[in-house]
Formats: sequence, C-alpha cells, structure tokens
Amino acid sequence: MPPYTDRLHALRAQLAQDGLDGFVVPLTDEHMSEYVGGYAQRLAWLTGFQGSAGAAAVLAETAAMFTDGRYTLQVRQQVDAADWSYQPVPAVSIADWLAEHAPAGGRIGYDPWLHTSAWVREAGAALAGKGATLVAVTHNPIDAIWADRPQPSDARLTVQDDTVAGASSAEKRSAIADWLAEHSADAVVLTALDSIAWALNIRGADVAHTPVALAYAIVDADGTAQLFVAPDKVTDAVRQHLGNAVRVRDRADFATALGGYAGKLIAADPDRAVAAIFDRLSAGGATIMTARDPVVLAKALKNPAEIAGHRAASARDGAALTRFLRWCEAELPRGGQTELSAAAKLQELREATGVLLDTSFDTISATGAHGASPHYHVTEESNAPIEAGQLYLVDSGGQYADGTTDVTRVAPVGPPTAEMRDRFTRVLQGHIAIASAIFPPGTTGGQIDAFARRPLWEAGLDYAHGTGHGVGAYLSVHEGPQRIAQPNYPGGGPSEPLRAGMIISNEPGYYKAGEYGIRIENLVLVEPRTPPGGDAGMLGFETLTFAPIERSLIVPEMLSESEAAWLDAYHARVVAVLGPQLDPAEQAWLAAKCAPIR
Amino acid sequence: MPPYTDRLHALRAQLAQDGLDGFVVPLTDEHMSEYVGGYAQRLAWLTGFQGSAGAAAVLAETAAMFTDGRYTLQVRQQVDAADWSYQPVPAVSIADWLAEHAPAGGRIGYDPWLHTSAWVREAGAALAGKGATLVAVTHNPIDAIWADRPQPSDARLTVQDDTVAGASSAEKRSAIADWLAEHSADAVVLTALDSIAWALNIRGADVAHTPVALAYAIVDADGTAQLFVAPDKVTDAVRQHLGNAVRVRDRADFATALGGYAGKLIAADPDRAVAAIFDRLSAGGATIMTARDPVVLAKALKNPAEIAGHRAASARDGAALTRFLRWCEAELPRGGQTELSAAAKLQELREATGVLLDTSFDTISATGAHGASPHYHVTEESNAPIEAGQLYLVDSGGQYADGTTDVTRVAPVGPPTAEMRDRFTRVLQGHIAIASAIFPPGTTGGQIDAFARRPLWEAGLDYAHGTGHGVGAYLSVHEGPQRIAQPNYPGGGPSEPLRAGMIISNEPGYYKAGEYGIRIENLVLVEPRTPPGGDAGMLGFETLTFAPIERSLIVPEMLSESEAAWLDAYHARVVAVLGPQLDPAEQAWLAAKCAPIR
Repeated sequence: MPPYTDRLHALRAQLAQDGLDGFVVPLTDEHMSEYVGGYAQRLAWLTGFQGSAGAAAVLAETAAMFTDGRYTLQVRQQVDAADWSYQPVPAVSIADWLAEHAPAGGRIGYDPWLHTSAWVREAGAALAGKGATLVAVTHNPIDAIWADRPQPSDARLTVQDDTVAGASSAEKRSAIADWLAEHSADAVVLTALDSIAWALNIRGADVAHTPVALAYAIVDADGTAQLFVAPDKVTDAVRQHLGNAVRVRDRADFATALGGYAGKLIAADPDRAVAAIFDRLSAGGATIMTARDPVVLAKALKNPAEIAGHRAASARDGAALTRFLRWCEAELPRGGQTELSAAAKLQELREATGVLLDTSFDTISATGAHGASPHYHVTEESNAPIEAGQLYLVDSGGQYADGTTDVTRVAPVGPPTAEMRDRFTRVLQGHIAIASAIFPPGTTGGQIDAFARRPLWEAGLDYAHGTGHGVGAYLSVHEGPQRIAQPNYPGGGPSEPLRAGMIISNEPGYYKAGEYGIRIENLVLVEPRTPPGGDAGMLGFETLTFAPIERSLIVPEMLSESEAAWLDAYHARVVAVLGPQLDPAEQAWLAAKCAPIR
Repeated sequence: MPPYTDRLHALRAQLAQDGLDGFVVPLTDEHMSEYVGGYAQRLAWLTGFQGSAGAAAVLAETAAMFTDGRYTLQVRQQVDAADWSYQPVPAVSIADWLAEHAPAGGRIGYDPWLHTSAWVREAGAALAGKGATLVAVTHNPIDAIWADRPQPSDARLTVQDDTVAGASSAEKRSAIADWLAEHSADAVVLTALDSIAWALNIRGADVAHTPVALAYAIVDADGTAQLFVAPDKVTDAVRQHLGNAVRVRDRADFATALGGYAGKLIAADPDRAVAAIFDRLSAGGATIMTARDPVVLAKALKNPAEIAGHRAASARDGAALTRFLRWCEAELPRGGQTELSAAAKLQELREATGVLLDTSFDTISATGAHGASPHYHVTEESNAPIEAGQLYLVDSGGQYADGTTDVTRVAPVGPPTAEMRDRFTRVLQGHIAIASAIFPPGTTGGQIDAFARRPLWEAGLDYAHGTGHGVGAYLSVHEGPQRIAQPNYPGGGPSEPLRAGMIISNEPGYYKAGEYGIRIENLVLVEPRTPPGGDAGMLGFETLTFAPIERSLIVPEMLSESEAAWLDAYHARVVAVLGPQLDPAEQAWLAAKCAPIR
C-alpha cells in the first residue's frame, strides 16, 4: 500500500478529531511564494504531486487534485487515481468543487496563513450556498500528522552589497516612506520574500534556488523597519548592515505585532499577504489600505548597477552555456549521455566560473518526448538516455551575486528532420519579433504577446504557455509585475505596462506531444528608444543573454531579410561578448556557429 | 450672449426649483444607444457640443464637460470656456469630479432612464464620501426647459425579409427561449435597439443612419414576445409579419409592465439596460439575472444569408466609391471642390445605385488638417476647400437592405510628400498585418491589435483610436461585442474572442496634427482556416470591402514580398469584383490603379 493512501487516511482521521468535514491544501507558504521550502511542501507530502503549482481538497468520502494544463499528464502519473479525482483549473475552481461536494452544513477547514482573503471570500460564498462553512484552523492538521516534517531552514542571512544593489537599504526604505506619505498611510506590511530581501539588501537561503529568507517586514512612515526573522539567522555582519533603523524581531512575534496598530492606516497587498494578516490587523483595530506592495514595481525597474551586474553575470553564464553546447554537439551523438549526466555537465561548467551561488531553478534537461513537457523535471526515475534523432532541450540559469540568469537552447542529436527545422525556425521568428519590437510607453506584455506566436499561428501551431516573465537581480527567476502572455494569463501580469529597466524573458516555444520540444529563451531589458523622425519616445528591448542559436535547426530561406539581419547581428554580439572568455578552439567553434545564416 | 449660457442659467433655475444642487447630462438615450435621436440630444442642446461621446455635470457655481481624447480640440471650439471646464476622460470620471465639487450634503440629480445601475452605484458611492446624495429624478429637468424639444420620430417600422435576414424571427426567438431555458429564467428584457430589430426582423428610422426604432421588447421562455413601441409606427404589414407570437404594446406601457414579474427570474443586461429598468423589475418583485443580452453575440455571428447580402452590398458600394475615387483624381487637382461638395458627389454616386437607404453614418469628408481629427464632422462652418498638396480622407458607408458598409480611403491632391508616402505605407502594412492574420479560436481583438500598429511603432508613430469595430447587417455600423483595440479600450470589446461569422473593420491610421490624416479601412469577415500540417483549426479574415488603395501613396520598396503579394492579390480581387459593374473607361482606369505594385 503506497504511503500516500495512509497519509490521506491519517488526514481524514485528524480532520474528524478536529471536528472538520474537509480541508484545503494549497501549494504555497505564508508568503504566497511560488517556490516553497520543504517544511511547507504539504501538498507533495500528502499526494505525491511534484509539480510547482496545484492544490488539493479533501472531504470524508472524496478528494480532488487541482492542476492546470501544464500538469495534466504529470498529476496522473504521480497521484493515485484510486484516492484522488483530477480537476482541471481554471475550468474547475476549488470553491466550485467544494460547493458541489461538501456535505450540507459541513465545516471545511483552511489554514489562514496559506490563503488570500479573496480566496477565503470566494470559497466561503460558494460554500454558503450549501449551508457549509469555511473554518480557519489554528493549527494545520497536516502538520499534526506529518511526523518527519522538515524544520524550516536555519540558513544565515547574507548582505547584498550596496555597490551591487545600486541603492542602499536606507534609500530604498526612504522611497517606501515617500509612498506611504503619498497615501497618508502609517506603515506597510511586506510579506513577499523577495520584496523584503530587496528592500533591506539582504539575501537568504531558505528556499531552493531563490536567495531569500523566511521573514516578514513592516516599514514605517519614517523609513524605519521591523524585520521579523528567526534570530539565529542574523549574524553580526547582517545586524551591522541593517543598522539602527531596522529593528530585528523574532519571526514568531509577527502575528502579535500585527495587533498593535489600533487607529493606524496600514498598507497590505491582498495578492501577497495571506488572510491571517488582514484578520490580525483588523482585530487589532488597524484600518487597512489594500495596495500592491510598493517594492514590486521598484524592484522590477533595475537600476544601472543591477543592469551592469546582470550584463556581467550574463556574459559569464553565456560562456559556460556555450561550452556546454559545444560539448553537446561533440558528445551527444556518441551516445551514453542522459538527461541527468548532461545536466551535471552543465552544472560543472557553471561551477567552473568560480562564482556560481546556485542554479536559478531546477535545470530542465529534457530529451525527445520529455521536451514536449515545458516544465519537465528530470529525476532518477524519469532520466532518459539522449539518443540520435532527438532534440535535446535545456532550460537553465545561474544565481550569481550580480545577477540571475535564465536561458533555453535546443541541441539536435544528429541531423534534425525538416519538420523540426520548420518549427524551430518559426519559434525563432517569434523570438526575433519580440526581441526587435518597438512600442509606446504604456504598452503591456499582453499587447505584444501575439508577435511571438504569429509565425506559429500561420502554420496552425501555438504553445500553451506565456512568452515572458520578469527576472530578479540575484533574486527570483520569476518576478512580477510584468509578463508577456495572453491577456487572460492568471495574475494580471499581461496588463502591466512594460517600463524601461524591466528585465523579462523572451521564450516562445513549440511542443509536439510524444516527440519533441522547442524553446528559445533569452532575457531582454526594456530600454528607451527614439526612432528618428518619430512623434514620440518609444520603448524597445536589448537582448541580454548570449549563446549561439543552433543554425542546423534554422531554415535560412524562411527568414525575412530583417529576421536574418537580426540573427546575424545577435550572433556577432555573441562572439564579441563571449569570445574573450573562450580558448582558441572554443572561439573557432563559436565563430563557425555564429557565421552569417545565409 | 450665446444661447448656451441662457440655457445653463435656465437649467440652474430649474434645478433650484426641483430642489437639486446639481444634475448630470449624459449623451445617450433610454437604450444606451451610441447614436441618439434629436429628442434625446440634451447634451448638444445644453452645451453646443456636437461630438458623439461626452457628458456634462452642472452644479450651482460650476459646470464641467467630460470628453475623451478624440474631442480634446472640438470641445474647446464648441463649448464656452466661460461657462464650462473641460475634463478629460477616462483620467477624470464624472463621479470623481462630482465628489470633489459637489456641496457637502448636496442633492445631485440624475435621470434613471439615462444611466446604468453601475454608474449610479459608482457615482453614489463617490458622493457619499462627501455626504452628498445622488437623486433619481422623475422628470428630466432639461426637458422642462427645452421648449422646442423635438418629438421622438414617428417613422414607421418596416419588415426585414426572412430571406435577407437568413432566419425568421420565430427561429431567433426560439434560440432566445433556449438560452432562457439554459439559465432557468422566465424572460429577458431587450433594450438595445439593434437587438430588438434583429430579433424581430424589423427595422425603423428613428435614429439617423441606423435603421432601428425606439422600442423595448420582452421575450418569454416560450419564445413569445412583447414589443413596446409607439402604436402609430406599426403598419398592417408589420403586424402581420410579427404574427400572434409577438404582442404589440404601447412603448408608454413598458415601465409599468416591468412591475408585473413578481417571483419570476428576469434577465437584463447591466451594460445595455438603464438603472430605471432594474429599479422597476425589483420594485415589482422580480428576481434579476444580470447577463449580456443574448442577441448581442447571436447578431454578431452573421449567417450565410447575411454574409451573402453583405458581399452584394459591398460590391455595389465599392463600385460607387471607386467611381468617386476616379472623380477625385480628375477633379480635386483642378480646384473648386470642398469637403461638402465632395461628400455630395459621393452621396450622388451611392444614390445612383438605386437602392441606397441611408448613409451608415455622417460621411467624414476631411481635407488637409481636418483629416487629422479621426472623427471630423464637416459642417457649413467648417467646410474647407480641397487644395493641392493636401491629402483628402473620406470615411463613409451605405445602408442597404442587404448590408451596412464602412470604408475609408485617402486621395492625394497632386503628388504627395515623401513623409506622407512613408506614413501611408506603414498604415497599409498595419492594415495588411490584420487582413492576413491567422490566429487560434479564443484569440481576442486585444491580442492582435498591435499587429496593425507595429509598422508605425517602429518609426515612433501611433494612432489614438481602435483598429476595428463590429458592423451590423443593415443595422448599426458600430456593433459589439468584438473590437480590435488596445486591451484598455472601454467597453470590454478587446476581450471578446473573435469568432467565425463576425464582421469587423480593419482601419489603422496615422494623424499629423495641423497637416493631414491617413486611414485605410476595409471590413473583414472572420472565417475558419486550416493551415496544412497544423495542429489545430485556426481563424483568419476574408476582406469584404473592395476599392483601390491609392498607389501613389505607397512606397513599393518598403513592402515585404508577402505584403506586396497581399496588395496585388487584393487589387486583383477589386478588379474582378468591381469590373463587371463599370463602363470601359472606368475599367481601364481601375486596371491601371490595380496593377502590380512593383
């Protein structure tokens, strides 16, 4: 009997003991994080699901897993159909499912530290229609039965130097204070881990691949702040860096501290702060101003030091990736390599830079049919040999103190088919259409997303993911608020105007189920442009990522003159930026890979 | 002293008499119509404003005109700055302005037959912050002082033949009944004049250029309907056409009838039905289901008869326009023509078809700098001579029993400048990018709008209007729900998926203030496409409008091969469709205008 069935039984017993008829299990932490520490991996522990987004709802007689289109296959492989039904989101919402399946008059539990207030309102309203009630639990019932639940990480904080950060924490807190003054608010609660790290120029190691620490912060109207964090994490160096204007308090005191703002106007972000925070603020007599965390936009607009840092990180990372692509071309056709061995080789080449701090996410090392899953995660169980005739897709990035990288390339193992080349060329045309786009201030990612899809659409093809996500500066590899995606992409990113200083990925793809996957990803910087003779200043993209785009996968005659010119100019930059870091043999190889396409 | 100042004084006196501290004057009618009859032109009567969208708010000491970016110049020319302040929408909303300027505790009147419930809620909430109240008036105070207010039109209804409509009213009402059954609703209130005309296969003549009648309708779950309309409008032929399943009632009985649905579930469209309708339904004990008028989408999806009718209307209209363009080329350079004389010539050529029922809107006949106002309306006062070196822009359409047309062309008076040609070519490239777009089902107009702008954006240029609006079948020339426009375009049209059978305009432009305007507009039909070898069925556009696109304004070498191929293929179709209607001299002229571009 698999352990997951036991765990589900144990949870149901615990719920019965707690007087609950059901419970909702999201995949997040107390900070609404996208990636969460092991201590918060309750969904994976309960169900076996290893994807990065999903949720579960458990009732006495039935239980459901909620996943989006990316995980339709994976959830069926990892989660037992005998115990769980599979529900597609957004077609089915947890609230709707609960309203349909909850017992009349039932009590459905939720952990208020793991849901937004909006979710609580929506699900509560849906349940009310059945006479059922949503009940905030004081202790998470999964934690009660999860005997070997990991402790939260005890990793120490580190200081992000002002010279790399480009602005001191005092300057950043002063800008937050200005924002509070504008809104006549007394303080703002920061809950997003990357917002706290950015605002205080600190980093952590509590979440895999993202250098953040589990913490909360409250910034006051005078620019002083309280940082709520496990005391053991704070070294003397960090304490000295934070200075007198930042009071360090125990993370365990945060909930209580929220009760101390009677009569004050406190800003909190309804998308980033959990329901419990709003509940505690209200209970303590604070008036709440709901507003987006003011750090979100400030952090997205990279300053000159952050941009310079990214350029340096990107050049370094590009040289490592280029060595890897040369290795792929030589080694993969010989056979004997696997997804794991190739990923290890790439890791080794990045580590050889001497300054790699982490990968920026689990490397997607996917050959053949595995490449058709855009978020494929290689494990010992899934590890596949890389074989002749396949396309090998590698989506990876490095965390360096000066920048976070994210890049995808595809390497053919031997000669690709005509169809692969046609598809790759269309993806490249879409990539170029984004890279070369010029657009007026105010334009959103939702408005230009179709530029990337048009060459595929013309052939009756498409890809089922967004085109680009923001990227942090030695922070989260997925960073808001901007996003290039279809307008209905969740979270509102496609409605955010693109602004000078934003870094965003440009990653169209094409996926043929059971056969192969293609994606070409570079990071780009939004920058001002002034077309001569124009009526107004515009914006455009500077490509920041350098590595050759595989020429044997390109059909040169499909490219327009301007597309071919873009590719040649890009490859010339690749040679110029990476060449000085390479040895003569590598340089010669790169020069050949980057020769004019026709 | 201009009459408008007297009128404003008279309104203030009336408000004082009515116990009101202010009043809001929108530009709409009881049907939330875009174009309204003379009897409802309260805003123009009060302020002198002749634009097609705007509103006014009058307080005891101050008054404000609210207009969008299209009318920034016009409102200053037509509305006296001594009496009115100019407020830009959407930057300033009426609700916000009232909240700022209304006296504390004041009573601000509004006519509940001229506002949506959402507006009432929003403005009421904004005023509540000041302790002021929004008060529904029972009699519009402007009507009390407007001595020579026109009577509503007494034009007769006409029958739209089933063969032209493509479906009988019984079939259409049966589909509405199916929709009601799906939602377990008892009836739906139809208030949009074009929805009523379409559902009952009738037409009217109460609104300039739009063949609709002032009426309301309620369709019951059994497919029967009540039509509320002035009794004199209903001829025997119409009564016979409507049959027993449609009960004709006096329009004056509508408000009372709404009170007769106690215990029933009644559907009404919050964007199309005014607040008074919701108030009356609620007061009568009905439960209201807010939902989009079910006719809106049905009407937008043209059936084969409507498409065939449009093709015929379009070919006929295109021949008239082509004769006009030939006349322009010959006559305009000789001098002596004006915007009004040219518009009259075009009207004469359309009337020569023998079947023109109306123009589909006031012809935009704009030369030189007037062309830079996208919605320019020529009057005796504004009428300008058409002179050498200008671009003459004509945006016009015809109402025919088989279809509604809308087309824009630009004629140069003598040789155009290099800049004009560059701009015209970019507008053409944008037009072609829309005309040739292929996209998956579910794609919205907001997603492809940027295709039309990209060639302009690349040169630091843009245009400040949408790219396309839906068009009715012998109905409104502006018809929802679809729209090709920036995602934030008001009304939600850009979020509507484009569906096979929709007709929509394709009309990018460029406007140089004080110098010239350019717009190239054709209507296109959304149709299924199946790219060979593709993964999925797609959608594309078939261009429905035929008239030559001025070749002397095109820079051939700026066009890509595929753009030039599109233009040549389009012009070949122009010759094929229009040629048979033209005499030999006209044919020869057209053939030369439509020769391959390079």
